[in-house]
Amino acid sequence: MANPKAPRKSAASDPKASSLYVQSVEKAMKVLMAFNGSQRQLSLSDIASLTGMDLSATQRFTHTLSTLGYLNKDQGKKYELSPKLLDFTFQYLASSDLVNRAAPYLQQLSSETEEATNLTVMNDTDIVFVLRIVSRHVFNANVIVGTRLPAWCTAPGLALLATYPDDEVDDIFERSQFMQYTPATVTDIGQIREHIHRIREERFAHVEDQYFYGDISTAAAIVDNNGRGIGAVNIAVSRSRWDEKRDMRRYADLVISTASSISGKRHN
Amino acid sequence: MANPKAPRKSAASDPKASSLYVQSVEKAMKVLMAFNGSQRQLSLSDIASLTGMDLSATQRFTHTLSTLGYLNKDQGKKYELSPKLLDFTFQYLASSDLVNRAAPYLQQLSSETEEATNLTVMNDTDIVFVLRIVSRHVFNANVIVGTRLPAWCTAPGLALLATYPDDEVDDIFERSQFMQYTPATVTDIGQIREHIHRIREERFAHVEDQYFYGDISTAAAIVDNNGRGIGAVNIAVSRSRWDEKRDMRRYADLVISTASSISGKRHN
Repeated sequence: MANPKAPRKSAASDPKASSLYVQSVEKAMKVLMAFNGSQRQLSLSDIASLTGMDLSATQRFTHTLSTLGYLNKDQGKKYELSPKLLDFTFQYLASSDLVNRAAPYLQQLSSETEEATNLTVMNDTDIVFVLRIVSRHVFNANVIVGTRLPAWCTAPGLALLATYPDDEVDDIFERSQFMQYTPATVTDIGQIREHIHRIREERFAHVEDQYFYGDISTAAAIVDNNGRGIGAVNIAVSRSRWDEKRDMRRYADLVISTASSISGKRHN
Repeated sequence: MANPKAPRKSAASDPKASSLYVQSVEKAMKVLMAFNGSQRQLSLSDIASLTGMDLSATQRFTHTLSTLGYLNKDQGKKYELSPKLLDFTFQYLASSDLVNRAAPYLQQLSSETEEATNLTVMNDTDIVFVLRIVSRHVFNANVIVGTRLPAWCTAPGLALLATYPDDEVDDIFERSQFMQYTPATVTDIGQIREHIHRIREERFAHVEDQYFYGDISTAAAIVDNNGRGIGAVNIAVSRSRWDEKRDMRRYADLVISTASSISGKRHN
């Protein structure tokens, strides 16, 4: 979602130009990120062409990452990602005060509604799913731990943006790409800003069909002592199970009270 | 769980001694792994002492990892892990054929039993949780995506070991530490080997109280075309909800048929 024209924060000195910056770390991460949903197994030359590195550099990084256990090499000499990469997610989840506090509330919300509930956090211009409890009714296999969606068109993203000062929202919008993900996606920045003002009054965000067609999502922000959003709780319902009269106010109240309970339990 | 006395595979040449090995990648990973459940925020000197690196090296790697977005620095100059690390888990899960095939079956198993169901894979001597569907009844917050438990005392681990040849099982046992996690944990290797022989006949593994006290787990292996385990499905039930007469055979049959359906759908 980053827009290369608009540099992050002030154009101070480039942290990548610093003598402290270790380029090999960037290259190793690039190799790991070359694998994605459509590319499960990659050969050395696949990785070279996807990362733009020459073969000998590629070989050094695949050797290193295999030795450290983050890549597996099969008999056909193709590489694939190793489950050892999940150690990072474990470390992140286990060390997160927010995740630990939110988990039982999310579970309760899911039992009560029998719908999918999520905990998301902001990362750059996106929301990232950190905890997801799927209901017995729906299972959107497209959303998993680590899924990243743009903040501007998702209920959790809008709920979080509503807790930020306007200049910060502007900065995030400048670096976002307003794409028409479904025929219903609202891409007009003026309208999105109005929506954010409404969320500030109503304390919840509600969107329908904005990123996934048929997806209805209601979210509220978990805030720190200064009222700044540090995460969001949402309930996601498929249109086939949605009854506006019955669900609209009920789900709004549920996410608001859940987010507020989690916010209230902060230790610092 | 690794035992430094027993080198992995043959004692051939040390891959870390190769000129292809890039040491800075190892150091960067070490910095990320210094954070864990009890260490959410670390100062530069905390990281230095946990990794055994000097302050100037530590500074180079924290600068690099912050610039790449994998570490966040707060106002108090402490570092913490960033949700960007979840990108690796997303890449792993999204690119895994096994995960994509297993997800709907796991969801169905969870709806049918209303208990927690898991997909795990072997990594070195451990099983790693890659997908977890929690039931509405129980929620063991200790087990999350990326959780790593020793294979020798868990139902999924034993189900997978039972599909490996004996010399491979021996190799894994040599590198494992047989700890008494609960008063009930069976640490006698002879008894564990007998259990593995029984699993080969019965096609499922069943353990009670072996790692967590009060946890009852039944698992079966998902196999490739050669009958080798590539993952395991398990149902985990807390003792308070367990009724041996009602559940024992039923859960065994359910995990066997689920694992076999997933195995059958393999494309390669």
